[in-house]
Amino acid sequence: MPSYTPPLRDQKFIVHEVLDAVNVLRAAPRYADLDADTANQILEESGRFCAEQLQPINRSGDQEGCRYDAASKAVQTPKGFRAAYEAFCAAGWQGLAAETEYGGQGLPHLLHIAFYEMQYSANQAWAMYPGLTTGAYELMLVHGTQAQKSLYLPKLVSGQWSGTMCLTEAHCGTDLGMLRTRAAPAGTDGRYRLTGNKIFISSGEHDLAENIVHLVLARLPDAPPGTKGISLFVVPKFLPEGDGAAARVGARNAIHCGGIEHKMGIHGNATCQIVLEDATGWLVGEPNKGLNAMFVMMNGARLGVGVQGLGLNEVAYQNAAAYAKDRIQGRSLSGPKAPTLAADPIIVHPDVRKMLLTARAYAEGGRAFAYWIALQADLQEHHPDPETRKFAADMMALMTPIVKAFLTDNGYNCATTCQQVLGGHGYIAEWGMEQFVRDARINMIYEGTNTIQSLDLLGRKVLQDNGARLHAFGALVRELIEECGTDPALNEFVTPLADLGEKVQKLTMEIGLKAMQNADEAGAAAVDYLRIVGHLVFAYFWARMARVALARIAADGTQVDPFYVAKLATARFYFQRLLPETAFHIRAARAGAGSLMALAAEQF
Amino acid sequence: MPSYTPPLRDQKFIVHEVLDAVNVLRAAPRYADLDADTANQILEESGRFCAEQLQPINRSGDQEGCRYDAASKAVQTPKGFRAAYEAFCAAGWQGLAAETEYGGQGLPHLLHIAFYEMQYSANQAWAMYPGLTTGAYELMLVHGTQAQKSLYLPKLVSGQWSGTMCLTEAHCGTDLGMLRTRAAPAGTDGRYRLTGNKIFISSGEHDLAENIVHLVLARLPDAPPGTKGISLFVVPKFLPEGDGAAARVGARNAIHCGGIEHKMGIHGNATCQIVLEDATGWLVGEPNKGLNAMFVMMNGARLGVGVQGLGLNEVAYQNAAAYAKDRIQGRSLSGPKAPTLAADPIIVHPDVRKMLLTARAYAEGGRAFAYWIALQADLQEHHPDPETRKFAADMMALMTPIVKAFLTDNGYNCATTCQQVLGGHGYIAEWGMEQFVRDARINMIYEGTNTIQSLDLLGRKVLQDNGARLHAFGALVRELIEECGTDPALNEFVTPLADLGEKVQKLTMEIGLKAMQNADEAGAAAVDYLRIVGHLVFAYFWARMARVALARIAADGTQVDPFYVAKLATARFYFQRLLPETAFHIRAARAGAGSLMALAAEQF
Repeated sequence: MPSYTPPLRDQKFIVHEVLDAVNVLRAAPRYADLDADTANQILEESGRFCAEQLQPINRSGDQEGCRYDAASKAVQTPKGFRAAYEAFCAAGWQGLAAETEYGGQGLPHLLHIAFYEMQYSANQAWAMYPGLTTGAYELMLVHGTQAQKSLYLPKLVSGQWSGTMCLTEAHCGTDLGMLRTRAAPAGTDGRYRLTGNKIFISSGEHDLAENIVHLVLARLPDAPPGTKGISLFVVPKFLPEGDGAAARVGARNAIHCGGIEHKMGIHGNATCQIVLEDATGWLVGEPNKGLNAMFVMMNGARLGVGVQGLGLNEVAYQNAAAYAKDRIQGRSLSGPKAPTLAADPIIVHPDVRKMLLTARAYAEGGRAFAYWIALQADLQEHHPDPETRKFAADMMALMTPIVKAFLTDNGYNCATTCQQVLGGHGYIAEWGMEQFVRDARINMIYEGTNTIQSLDLLGRKVLQDNGARLHAFGALVRELIEECGTDPALNEFVTPLADLGEKVQKLTMEIGLKAMQNADEAGAAAVDYLRIVGHLVFAYFWARMARVALARIAADGTQVDPFYVAKLATARFYFQRLLPETAFHIRAARAGAGSLMALAAEQF
Repeated sequence: MPSYTPPLRDQKFIVHEVLDAVNVLRAAPRYADLDADTANQILEESGRFCAEQLQPINRSGDQEGCRYDAASKAVQTPKGFRAAYEAFCAAGWQGLAAETEYGGQGLPHLLHIAFYEMQYSANQAWAMYPGLTTGAYELMLVHGTQAQKSLYLPKLVSGQWSGTMCLTEAHCGTDLGMLRTRAAPAGTDGRYRLTGNKIFISSGEHDLAENIVHLVLARLPDAPPGTKGISLFVVPKFLPEGDGAAARVGARNAIHCGGIEHKMGIHGNATCQIVLEDATGWLVGEPNKGLNAMFVMMNGARLGVGVQGLGLNEVAYQNAAAYAKDRIQGRSLSGPKAPTLAADPIIVHPDVRKMLLTARAYAEGGRAFAYWIALQADLQEHHPDPETRKFAADMMALMTPIVKAFLTDNGYNCATTCQQVLGGHGYIAEWGMEQFVRDARINMIYEGTNTIQSLDLLGRKVLQDNGARLHAFGALVRELIEECGTDPALNEFVTPLADLGEKVQKLTMEIGLKAMQNADEAGAAAVDYLRIVGHLVFAYFWARMARVALARIAADGTQVDPFYVAKLATARFYFQRLLPETAFHIRAARAGAGSLMALAAEQF
């Protein structure tokens, strides 16, 4: 059976030693009273919840799956999901980072992201229920009217009501401009009647919460075609009565689950067909600006999905490492390492270590990156200095597609790699590794496929502003290089970082020029480009982590915590073994669109 | 629902135009009468069988799985599996490449491998039942006594009896030296009594054949420890009575299925725990030489598993290409391509094409490679010239781990890539793509993990003979380069091929020297090394295919079959977009063992 231990030591290393996050956050009045002990306590307690409540029902949830009852149109979640959800709500976890005004704890996104990581390591299918609620909360907080906020937010913060995002229809996923769900004004009290069919709605129906707050994209009668004619509506499963904390559920609304999908993984999460038949809804935000409003939720969700990739990367690593230390099989090529045993543990083999270190370096690099982005989210919202806020917002915009795509590609690839460590046992359900692979696979697809993320990065986030945001990140990189420039111990990290930084600059220019002639050149380079920039970001954080580790090793000498020795070794592994992947992608990105576009469609 | 069309056009291209196989084979007396029409007819008829009989029960077989009944210890295969098996046997397909002396058709391995590819595209789980029978046949043909051959081979050739290979035990898979199953002589008629527990036995119990011929590794009472004390036994499910075609099944033997595994994929194939309780068996080959004998079956199985990777690569490509041409979503970045539709088919997007071309180039390259190896198997056995036989044997030895590991890595990665083309639908079971991914995953694991293959390649097949076999392949590469050297149209293929050839030579020397100092250096480089040599092989075959295509384009001008234009374009794609992966792996392979071995085991 698989196991999971919250990686608290590494989380604290990143939060305190790499990011110095508590001090950074205290510059914002909202977090002036934050202290390290509180942060640590949150990490520990939320980690305990994940390990004790969520992990034990992960495999059973996968085996059992959700059950749909066509007569009642109800979905039953797997055994234990509801009890865990009740415990989660009772402890106030849903409101960790929510406004105190609506019942939340008002803690930083940083801690919420760390909690997310552990939830996803422990049980991604379960964690997607409250995850969507957080997205719905954030959207309503920005775009809801005061009345909507006062009605819905306390319920979402407590978890009494949960949320969904209803975008996709059978004929349109990526291309929402084609969506057909219609909303017609009904009477004078601001109500609309919505009719249409949605598919692939995660957490779309379940038995965890008293009410489900669907956020639905639809077209008004006079809407222009395409994406400029999409509006956003809140369509609750039960029509609310009353207000705020005192609100209660009233009549059943005409929004139903028409069925659930049978899919590769995340079996414990209901992926629903949602049917609206004159369902009652209320406009959220301005007419025809629904897609913009939804992007609040989508951007948050994209970061969340990236962290799903991180979570699965981490838990796959933990289980593969445990197996590799325990399983005896064969002898070390360089002579027996456990001569008293019938064979050596397989961790003596260089390639087993390579597989483990690959997963570990991607997990630890991803953690530093994702936590830093979460910190930017906090600074963007609450820092008093407008330049800091602007910088944070730029980093969020630039990095969101990288977090989403790079961390989910890594998560899937590392889950596959860790599965390989177990040999035949990796393929057998009871060992749990194959579930990690199946669950991790969705993260590369939903919330915008990783191809879409790469187009967002290269087209909208880099080329559209002439590389200004990328340049802003480059300034951070240069700053680090300058700070480290005089220390020979840091050369092995800083030199390849600087080299890659220059290559990214040149490559960006080159692709930009080509794309001005032919937009397909951007499409042809984008996926490779994202992978290259992802490595630039990882190289930056691995250099920062190596610097911290080296400083501690220098300060503590032989008394140093082995954690720092391992960190330094993992940094070296990253630079020697993983970063060179960029040599491939730079060549591929420069190869251009020609060989891709040569064949006529019918020749495929 | 997924579909499958046998890739006959491409198969014939490789068999006739690239390999000129019929003429090459006719130099062997056994194949003196072979003609192209017969070969084509076999391809067509066997392809029809796969498409019509096997493909329709692939998804239902996955959903239904095998059922184990604990009371009777019987396994029920999914609906339709038995009928397809009966049709397969009735048509004589089991004996396609078997000796006519035992009822086979005596056709070349080449055609059998092509048939395998189509079987695996259509239904890997089903195809593993007869696949193991072929392995058992080949082993018994080489190592059985005359009496064993005359008893078992006709039954295996007809498919009336099926085969298994019983190697793995719970505590040993890779390291068979630790196996514990015991065989004790029983009486004077050459019988043994076998006792032990085997796991992960594919096709270990089922309802397809009248009898199951288990080939079991076990230890004799006086056996030395380790791999030098392993013997091979034939342990039939039912004890045979009579002989040859007239043999029939007698008493039930004490070899039973103790349960089947729940696993990620190949649900239609029973992966069995096999319990031997004083089961009756007969020694095959010499005492304590069982592992050598089993290697006949394992080498054949490794080639077969590589072709499983190819088969899934191909069928995943076909379904993703069909979806990409059909699904309309979004507009081409370079302007609408289907202005009369609401959106363009997604095949207009460069990255969708890149994903498809990746799968296609790996499938077509893998097909050329695998078919060439199958041809070497025929030449090794039947060519009159001893040097040709020696060269073929060397190529078989050198290339077996590459076929196994490179084609199965490609198969899984391409299945994943093709799944991505379908977006959300790729994750939904009914579209079939996720099954291809789950099924393809096992191929990287069984018959020796891909790490084991890489150690076999670098250690045993390259370094142990000082690169002689690799040099023999290098001579083929140089010959091609010299032949093409004067043709400027071939430069784009031949130049990178020559460049990679030189790099492989240098890298091999470098790793060899380092490994003499420290054997872990071989283990640290092996997986990257296999991937690099795999690309050298693919670059060689893609250059050969490009040459044939260019010649046809030159000869036929505007009347040329578009097949050749597509082939040339795919060759260009391979060289521009896939081959550059070697830049990464060369750097990684050269990085050495240091960063892998730095951490103590307890630091993982």
